[in-house]
Parts: sequence; C-alpha cells; structure tokens
Amino acid sequence: MNQREIDDLARAVAAKLLSKQARRPPARPDGSDAAVLPLRRPSQGGPPEAKPVLRQWQTPDISWRMPLGGEREAVVPAPEPLRAEAIRVADFVDHTLLKAEARRAEIDKLCAEARQYRFAAVCVNGCWAAHCAGLLRESGVKVAVVAGFPLGAMTSGAKASEVRQLVDDGADEIDMVAAVGHILDEDWDYVEDDIRAVVEAARGRAVKVILETAALTPMLIVKAAAIAKEAGASYVKTSTGFHPSGGATVEAVTLMRAAVGPDLGVKAAGGIRDCATALKMIAAGATRLGTSSGVKLVDCLGDREMGLDELLAGADGHGASCKTKGCKTEAY
Amino acid sequence: MNQREIDDLARAVAAKLLSKQARRPPARPDGSDAAVLPLRRPSQGGPPEAKPVLRQWQTPDISWRMPLGGEREAVVPAPEPLRAEAIRVADFVDHTLLKAEARRAEIDKLCAEARQYRFAAVCVNGCWAAHCAGLLRESGVKVAVVAGFPLGAMTSGAKASEVRQLVDDGADEIDMVAAVGHILDEDWDYVEDDIRAVVEAARGRAVKVILETAALTPMLIVKAAAIAKEAGASYVKTSTGFHPSGGATVEAVTLMRAAVGPDLGVKAAGGIRDCATALKMIAAGATRLGTSSGVKLVDCLGDREMGLDELLAGADGHGASCKTKGCKTEAY
Repeated sequence: MNQREIDDLARAVAAKLLSKQARRPPARPDGSDAAVLPLRRPSQGGPPEAKPVLRQWQTPDISWRMPLGGEREAVVPAPEPLRAEAIRVADFVDHTLLKAEARRAEIDKLCAEARQYRFAAVCVNGCWAAHCAGLLRESGVKVAVVAGFPLGAMTSGAKASEVRQLVDDGADEIDMVAAVGHILDEDWDYVEDDIRAVVEAARGRAVKVILETAALTPMLIVKAAAIAKEAGASYVKTSTGFHPSGGATVEAVTLMRAAVGPDLGVKAAGGIRDCATALKMIAAGATRLGTSSGVKLVDCLGDREMGLDELLAGADGHGASCKTKGCKTEAY
Repeated sequence: MNQREIDDLARAVAAKLLSKQARRPPARPDGSDAAVLPLRRPSQGGPPEAKPVLRQWQTPDISWRMPLGGEREAVVPAPEPLRAEAIRVADFVDHTLLKAEARRAEIDKLCAEARQYRFAAVCVNGCWAAHCAGLLRESGVKVAVVAGFPLGAMTSGAKASEVRQLVDDGADEIDMVAAVGHILDEDWDYVEDDIRAVVEAARGRAVKVILETAALTPMLIVKAAAIAKEAGASYVKTSTGFHPSGGATVEAVTLMRAAVGPDLGVKAAGGIRDCATALKMIAAGATRLGTSSGVKLVDCLGDREMGLDELLAGADGHGASCKTKGCKTEAY
C-alpha cells in the first residue's frame, strides 16, 4: 500500500467515523455503558466499513515494529473517555498558551480560567512551570509543560536535563517534541532513545510525544506513534501548533489512534478553535485537545456531561449562536 | 521621547546611513584604513545629521542601565569588519538551517557549502552540533548552535544545561534566545540572569543573544540589547526567523548597534534572502548575517574583498542578473 492509498484510506475512515458517530451507537445487549466507537470495536457490531482498515494495519510494511501487530484481530476496547456514556468537553482541554511573548499576567489569567472551567490541564512553556504549579496547587488542574519545544531538535541529553528541572518545578505532565528530522530519516533508534531519555527524566509523569504530523507522511505517523509507545510515552500528540505546515487533522488522529491502540492517550493540538473541529478530533480518538479556545468551547457546548453523539448534534444545531469560529459554516 | 518618535528617528537614521554609505567615506587625514561609518565616529567628519541621534541616546529614559551612557560623546571606533577598507560578504554569513525537519543529508550539504564558500559559521540545531563539529574540523568555519530556540521560554537552568552539552559537543558559538515574555514585562533581573547563565555555561564561547526584535518596541530593543551586553553577550541578534511578526529590519539593527556600541557584534537574521537586504543590514551595523541564502549572495556579490560602497553600487547595478530574490525590484 503506497502513501496516497494510506492517505485516501485515512480520509475515508475519518469521514465514515464522523457520519456514524453523529448517531448514538445502539445499546449493547448486556446493558453495559461501553458505548464505543466503531473503529475501536469492529467485532462488537461496528460498521463493516471500518474493518478493512484494522486489517490493513497488519500488512508487513506497516506492522513493522508495531507493538500491537498480533492483536489487531482481537476486540480492542475504546479508550476510557469514549467508553463512558457521556463526556465533559472541559475534561479534554489542555488550556494552552505557548507563544514566546506570553506575559505573566496572561499566564495568571490562563490558570484562573483553567481552575474556573475545571480543564484537564494548562499547557505552558518551561519558564512558567513553577509559577503555574503554585497557582494551581490543589485545584485538580494539571500543569503540562513543553520540552524540546517546538523544534524537537535539541540533543536528547538537553531534553532530559530540561525535563528533570521541570519535574522539580512541579510539572505534572511533559509535552515533548520528537526528533522530527530523525523521523524523516527513519533513524528509529535515535527517535526511540530520544523519547526514552525524556520518559526516564519525567520520573513517572505522563509524557506526551509530539510528532509534528503535518511534516510527516501517513506511514511515518504510524511508525513514529508506535515507537513512542514502545519508548514509554503516555500520549502521542499531533502538533506543536508552530509548524508552518499546520496542526492537527482528523486523519492524523485516526492514524495515531490506530497505531497506539486503546491504552495510550492521543492529543490533538494546533488549529483547534471551534466546536466542530474539537468534536471531530474526539470522535476520531483524541483524549486531549491542545487549544487556546477552551473557554469558548465550553461556553458553546456546555459544562455538563453529554453523549458525544448529542454534542455532535448540538454543535450542528447551534451554529448561529456559536461563540467559536467556524461552526456557522462548518459542515458536519 | 515616545516610541513613535524613536521609531521615526530610527527610520530616518537608517535612510541617511544608507544614502551616505553608498558613497565611499573620505580618506582620513592620517592615512589610516579606518574607513568608518558615520554613526560610529560622529566626531571624525561624519555627517552632522548623524550627531543628534547619538546625543538622543543620552536622554535619561533610554540611557537607563545603558552601559555606554557616559561615553556617548567620545570617539567610538567602528566595529572591526567595517573599519576595513574592504569586506568579503562570505565572512559575514552564518550559513543557517534550523527547521525542525532538517535531515542529515541537508546538514552535510550545509557544511560542505560552508567549507567551500568559507563562510563565518554554520548555524544549526543542537542535535546536529557534534556532527557538524566533526565535518568542519580544521576548516576555519565555526559551528554556531542555537539554544532555548526559538521561543526562549525554557527555564534558565535548562538553557544552561543545554549549552554545557553543546560546548562538550564542539559548538564554537551559541545563539541563545532571550526570555521574550520577561522582556515585555520588563523583568530585567530575570532577563539578565537568564543570559548570564548561558554566558557562564558557554565557557568562553561567543554567545549571541536573540531578542526577537519584531515582537518588541524600539525602546525595549535598546534596553534588552544593553542588558545583553551587561550580561556578557558577544553579539546581539535580531530574530529567530520563526516568529510570525517577522525577522530582521534595518531599524532594529541600527538601534541595536547604537545600544551596544562598537565592541559587540550585531547579527541580523530572519528574512535575509537577497543582496539588497544583506548589504543594508551590514551598512546599518550588522557584523553577521543569519541566512540560508549565503551561497546565492556570494554567487551574486562575489568572493573577493570589496568596499561596502562598491558592493552597494554593484548590487544596485546587477539587478537583472541577480541570483537572489528581490534585487531587481529593490530600491537602494
């Protein structure tokens, strides 16, 4: 299968996923609350269209070093947030401010909003880690801090040193950038060692590995995501938000979710500014959203727990009053 | 003096500099080869128009923490490259490749070109430092490596750790990014300590401090440049080349040169892609150019030593055959 075919396939899967997920999945016979998405459980009554994709991942060229190779035929449970009957959008939001010129007052506001909206985390640069950890103590909001950011082209040793200091400063989660040039060169030993050095330095904190998917082919996204899992990542993440080629896409999230399976998180980041995009990413398998539009998203979609299908339908209907960009004109 | 006035002033100075420098400065009475630019030696027969600018820098609000405050009236010798009768454009070029997706073969090509054209340095990301140091051993081309790049928002400790490792890997020069958010907050103690930590970690290697001038007001450029000098920088540098607000401007280079005086280098970087822009930056006081267009510049302007005025006139005349973008349409 060549790259264009993979790309076409990913688009087709994403389109189908979205059309399927706008309808509530049928209740399971055992009455459990595992309302899962088709991609995750093809053997549990998911649409037959999704099945060939999962089979496709077993071709030798893609399953190369794929940790889940042999398990593809098995039942794959959905990741935790999507198993639930209902989700709270705020639980997915990493409230993010990463521009170089971010000032102290803006960081303070970010933390206050994160506390008020009960977001999953704030996501900030290293020089603000200790400050945010102080502001968010006992708030339930995590402090996610970037490392090797945004180029991923520091030495592995420098990334590890940085992360050790960030953990000392109170970081709960580390969003590291993988070595993009080495991914393109398929220098997988380097890529894996680079991630592993950060995972070790993080001393048990969740590490999100940013692949900068807009700079990669679909095949490289799959391979790099698998390597990240092998190296001990807790999440794979699409983008820094700083790359000229762009941020998260539904296709990239779908590929990453297929590659890492249900046990890891997938974070979509970069360019998520409206309800439509945010919900598409969740439907495609994202368990975190890196965005600076979290407040608008929750103001639009509500703070209470709702089914993803209900949210998708709601986002479709509330275009005229939407507080985020794009909903008015987006087609679902 | 308010910001707009400073801005207008800087533009006027730059325009005058350029119009003056297109003519060769008159030979000095003592026959020495110190063919200096007007801004540098206002008391040595420079045009009277330049004088008020130097006086202006002595107003209390700008001379705040300015290390050269009391010396403004004194004769200020031009920086070394501009004292010479003639310059070799290649001596100004930091041959640069900093994008995240740079691959090994591209880095190899960069080093081969730097060796062939005898550029001042290559400028690369940390993960390539050791590789470049190997390739450029005994070539006379320096290995400049970025740190805290491109956001400058890592902790100072992380920047210092990174730089210690880069020096071990063979870096000859460090291009660090200052704490841009803290400059905007005028948290000068933080900014100074941050730079000082890197200067100490660099153990005698030249440190270029990137201010990201496109994100700063003229006043902040002057203040930050002065702080960088106090903290032990060898150069101040305009830009990372990654900021959405843009790269080097003649105005920023002029301000930085005025702020640091003749003893420090000034590096213009970001958006320097044609002969016209490159020569304007040198005329405004730049002693290094960070560019990926070094090969084209030398192919256009020649490899032999020439007077800056001759080069400026040449660039004006060779528009039709220019190998770089912009010369055809640029007005000098």
